[in-house]
Amino acid sequence: MRRKGFIVTALINRAAGTFGESPASGLVCRNCGATFPLGAQHACFECFGPLEIGYDPERLARVTRADIEAGPYSLWRYAGLLPAGHNPLTRVESGTGMTPLIRADKLADRLGFTAPLWVKDDSANPTHSFKDRVVSVAITAARELGFTRIACASTGNLANSVAAHATRIGMDSIVFIPSDLESAKVTQTAIYGGTLVAVEGSYDDVNRLCSELSETDEFESTAFVNVNVRPYYAEGSKTLGYEVAEQLGWRLPQQVVAPMASGSMLTKVNKAFKELVSIGLVDALDYRVYGAQSSGCSPIAQAFADGTDTVIPVKPTGIAKSLNIGNPADGPYALDAVRSTGGAMAHVDDEEIRAGIQLLAETTGVFAETAGGVTTAVLKKLVESGQLDPSRETVIYNTGDGLKTLDAVSDRVQPTATIPPTIKGMRAAGLL
Amino acid sequence: MRRKGFIVTALINRAAGTFGESPASGLVCRNCGATFPLGAQHACFECFGPLEIGYDPERLARVTRADIEAGPYSLWRYAGLLPAGHNPLTRVESGTGMTPLIRADKLADRLGFTAPLWVKDDSANPTHSFKDRVVSVAITAARELGFTRIACASTGNLANSVAAHATRIGMDSIVFIPSDLESAKVTQTAIYGGTLVAVEGSYDDVNRLCSELSETDEFESTAFVNVNVRPYYAEGSKTLGYEVAEQLGWRLPQQVVAPMASGSMLTKVNKAFKELVSIGLVDALDYRVYGAQSSGCSPIAQAFADGTDTVIPVKPTGIAKSLNIGNPADGPYALDAVRSTGGAMAHVDDEEIRAGIQLLAETTGVFAETAGGVTTAVLKKLVESGQLDPSRETVIYNTGDGLKTLDAVSDRVQPTATIPPTIKGMRAAGLL
Repeated sequence: MRRKGFIVTALINRAAGTFGESPASGLVCRNCGATFPLGAQHACFECFGPLEIGYDPERLARVTRADIEAGPYSLWRYAGLLPAGHNPLTRVESGTGMTPLIRADKLADRLGFTAPLWVKDDSANPTHSFKDRVVSVAITAARELGFTRIACASTGNLANSVAAHATRIGMDSIVFIPSDLESAKVTQTAIYGGTLVAVEGSYDDVNRLCSELSETDEFESTAFVNVNVRPYYAEGSKTLGYEVAEQLGWRLPQQVVAPMASGSMLTKVNKAFKELVSIGLVDALDYRVYGAQSSGCSPIAQAFADGTDTVIPVKPTGIAKSLNIGNPADGPYALDAVRSTGGAMAHVDDEEIRAGIQLLAETTGVFAETAGGVTTAVLKKLVESGQLDPSRETVIYNTGDGLKTLDAVSDRVQPTATIPPTIKGMRAAGLL
Repeated sequence: MRRKGFIVTALINRAAGTFGESPASGLVCRNCGATFPLGAQHACFECFGPLEIGYDPERLARVTRADIEAGPYSLWRYAGLLPAGHNPLTRVESGTGMTPLIRADKLADRLGFTAPLWVKDDSANPTHSFKDRVVSVAITAARELGFTRIACASTGNLANSVAAHATRIGMDSIVFIPSDLESAKVTQTAIYGGTLVAVEGSYDDVNRLCSELSETDEFESTAFVNVNVRPYYAEGSKTLGYEVAEQLGWRLPQQVVAPMASGSMLTKVNKAFKELVSIGLVDALDYRVYGAQSSGCSPIAQAFADGTDTVIPVKPTGIAKSLNIGNPADGPYALDAVRSTGGAMAHVDDEEIRAGIQLLAETTGVFAETAGGVTTAVLKKLVESGQLDPSRETVIYNTGDGLKTLDAVSDRVQPTATIPPTIKGMRAAGLL
């Protein structure tokens, strides 16, 4: 009676779709353009530049709106535009994606918008951050490539997602985090029972260790989602772009604001928009991409302000730990995406971040983690400085959940009153 | 350019559906059967018994599987079976519902199941508990009934949900909680900026105060979701039954395990299953309903063990605060649902609850709050005692998120090792 083996999530409309083969054609160096066959490679053999997935434009162009709309209500509806997961029976389906796009009229009013303002709320994913997207794609690719263990270097959200997905599909996991992470994120990872290694150092130290380990014999069968299968992993973020376009009724917004850690996610949203235009799923539009960082770790925003392409690594500080990558791998590409679309970047300090969390929650009912506070506060700052146009339709990305970083705001908000359980108590508190 | 006014969530397939009119025909006393017209009434004028929604069987029977499947990917796809929200333009759409039904093979193996075991994971709702369901329906009904403010007595999750929904749709809110609630739940409610009143007393004291307040002139325009609009509110839980049936491919599971606080949710799952059979959307099946409580607050399970219909109120203790209702309004109806289907009830202590959270997380990747730990631990206990049959297909309900009650497990789980950021450190820790 019981179907043994692979654990599935029951989603309605788990249609097989028409994506018989992957549209990916190979790995392409983002530096020198050299191409390589698909596999577990992340750096160019020619110039050591980072690789990304290249696609066969004809295979991408076969994907129609109808195909997508007939697919599952998850990020896998876009399988025809992704490098892995074309077989619905072997992809990792955790119900990730298709998170709400929330109309933020009260926030729009507060900030003086005359055009619609939306929040794409990725705290609705299974482990409550956008990392479930990249992990869904990375872990699916890793299994297709024959890896037996999954690993990552993480500032917290990725750790949560890797550990949860690994145990659900019965794969071993080993997760590396900085030892000073928020305790909530440590507990939420450790609870899943995989191997969790706290590393005395910054995220950049953790990342370096993972790069070294990925070269050892002992880790030959281990896929580090953001190291040796990073080209697949990173493509998962494209779905943040696809979904916004589909949820707006197959059109692009005029402005988007995204937080930046490595800078990867922002570049992939831009890539997604360009792909949708090139294959004819949406009309072309002069959209602008804006990047948000915390002042405690703003190497990309600093390079933007300085008008340079060179991102100078920093030692991160501040409460937005999920964004604390001091040596951002995709910094130059994020700068290019923002500059080429006519957007801008800004950074905000811890006090502004806290206020940003509160502003977003009070006006939209979305309780964001510190990264969402960064994005909201940067939106406000960019409007005030005139760099972001409040008469253009805008989408901001909330990438994580406020419950993960409660300490950031727990002293800012308190009950209105504490009373005895009586009508008299209500009157004494001025509530009646 | 900007459409002012009501804030909507962009959901794909927000089809209008064919539910032009409500299937609700009136309010029915669950004690004496007296009927009343639909309105903001919750107690019988004849016998003071609790009222629930009565439906016109013909109107319910008009709903087809195709109607539902063509609806939005949220609980509103079942609008044809609910007492409010028939107009897609005025219903409160927060993307609640259609949460994952997760195949739990590893948990099944651990507990000796030979039949499929599933977890219905309601932590995937917007504020990460099943309360978003009842609030979606209650706040929609409250607005249709002309109320201008929304209120509740809450053990935490309901407070989160009411405050978030209220601010999103621009309605005032006043939320009452026991002053000893977990700080995470206080912060997650206070962050939305509505009025939050901490009451020195138990949930039952808070509830009593709300009942008194709902009779005052000052609260005439205030809908207490679980007091004066409770009949509407409670119906939202039916969607937990509908979704499981649809996600299983339009059939009922043979056994379900649900946590009990007031007992309402469990009775509504049973009501949903019965309705689906009566209108022909699923085949009849001898399913069994099981109820789970914490030993610190087990008045319903105690009455079950004692073979009585009389639920004796208790003073709640223990870590499962979201279930700590000592005087459960729907206790007798929960007893009837369990007994009439041949199910059983059990309760588990705090240590078992913590182990239950960990067991569920390790085997399924679902991190539950204490209530989910109660349900998982009770599942284990009922299998071990022979009261729940592991050869019958079973669904357990996880009603809330582990991030809300982190303290319950934070000392149980720790990193595997803490190391310096070197290969040597990995070797010293025995990880290489």
